[in-house]
Amino acid sequence: MLVIGERINSSRKAIAEMLKNKDGDALVKEAIAQNKAGAAYIDVNAATMMELEPEYLKWLVLLLNEHLDVPLCIDTPNPAAMEIALRTHKGRAMLNSISAESERFNDVLALIREYKPRVVALCLGDEGMPESVDDRLRVVDRLLPALLDAGIAPEDIFFDPLVKPVSSGSTYGLEVLQTISAIKSRFPGVRTVCGLSNVSYGLPVRKLLNRAFMVMTVAAGMDALIIDPLDKSLMSLLYASEVLVGHDEYAMEYLRAYREGRLEA
Amino acid sequence: MLVIGERINSSRKAIAEMLKNKDGDALVKEAIAQNKAGAAYIDVNAATMMELEPEYLKWLVLLLNEHLDVPLCIDTPNPAAMEIALRTHKGRAMLNSISAESERFNDVLALIREYKPRVVALCLGDEGMPESVDDRLRVVDRLLPALLDAGIAPEDIFFDPLVKPVSSGSTYGLEVLQTISAIKSRFPGVRTVCGLSNVSYGLPVRKLLNRAFMVMTVAAGMDALIIDPLDKSLMSLLYASEVLVGHDEYAMEYLRAYREGRLEA
Repeated sequence: MLVIGERINSSRKAIAEMLKNKDGDALVKEAIAQNKAGAAYIDVNAATMMELEPEYLKWLVLLLNEHLDVPLCIDTPNPAAMEIALRTHKGRAMLNSISAESERFNDVLALIREYKPRVVALCLGDEGMPESVDDRLRVVDRLLPALLDAGIAPEDIFFDPLVKPVSSGSTYGLEVLQTISAIKSRFPGVRTVCGLSNVSYGLPVRKLLNRAFMVMTVAAGMDALIIDPLDKSLMSLLYASEVLVGHDEYAMEYLRAYREGRLEA
Repeated sequence: MLVIGERINSSRKAIAEMLKNKDGDALVKEAIAQNKAGAAYIDVNAATMMELEPEYLKWLVLLLNEHLDVPLCIDTPNPAAMEIALRTHKGRAMLNSISAESERFNDVLALIREYKPRVVALCLGDEGMPESVDDRLRVVDRLLPALLDAGIAPEDIFFDPLVKPVSSGSTYGLEVLQTISAIKSRFPGVRTVCGLSNVSYGLPVRKLLNRAFMVMTVAAGMDALIIDPLDKSLMSLLYASEVLVGHDEYAMEYLRAYREGRLEA
């Protein structure tokens, strides 16, 4: 499982403060802690900074590239912010995200063609949020050829089925699981990713639902997750899940996490 | 999800003591606590009592039938113990279990024909433990016609794929999940059941693996689980899992568990 650390997001109050105060030490610490806990990419999101977003993203990319040898996941729907972040990033970034929404599609695709990042591709078009597995697969059918044509290899494209709250539809969880399986079987080599927390919106004890949902996505074949790697319970279940689906031969990663005190019952 | 409470098992030292001391109060308490925590059946297993097993099982059935209006799951491979327990049980019991092992098959089938219990049917034949999904389905193909012919309806037959430790084979977890899906799609109406704890044998922090595996079995379509309903973390994940796969419309059971303080993050 490829873990993308989600903590550096300006929608979190503590992170917004760090950004406003240009508290580089604290932000570097957040990034290092996530990497040590298992994140292969560090997501950076400064969307709540509004018109200052490009400037803050650029500063974040420079800062984190200087102090860590870990690629970033540039998380913004704004092509102007994307461009400045991709141009600044040393080595190969991940871009989160492109969608099939026509408003931004051409601009974002041009950036992908230019900078060749790994790409999170949302199952989202001009029709708005997908209503079914087929809605999602129709978007994949549109985005995949364009991304391949832009020079991105299948294994560098991560489709995000978009998770909706099960409180608004009892089949919304299953649809995501079925979409993952369908993408993996129809488009061999292409990868999948998602965040978890939307699934539990509107219900109490959200962490419980997020954790159970994560385990289910692993069983469905999920390749990457945008999560908080400092959530020890979540990560413990992730290690366990990888053993159970045969992704952790001889349970080596599980046993290492155990020896290092990273497993919590 | 149909929960079968596994706590009254003489392999647990405390239970063996209660049995030896004929401590009916303590055993009734164990049964009531499991039922209150969500068990629809109470498993009773006195296998470690050896030649006294039939006598102890009979005593347990009389005791629990007298104090609880909850059916028991008669858990023994021994036809003599089965017969005395089934004959004693008021109303309809569940029998755990029949297998395709020829040594006991005819005797057990005759008891099933006579007493018409719900049945746990193990995916196990004279070849020993199954080595693949196909091995398991071959046993289903043999057992199902015999059980239907004995007058048991499909929805009263619970196939147990038999869970083996992932520490001895990295595909052993996946095989169980695939067997569940295969049984549900090939034999509509027939149900599935399993215990969890074998999956984690030989690895540390076993509860973590058992919990993650439980979540995966729910997503795969599991109908019943033989578990400890007093394990609050496990049950919390079970409630969450049921919401996520659309088995808990409007999250009513989840919200009730939350209000009653039964959910643990």
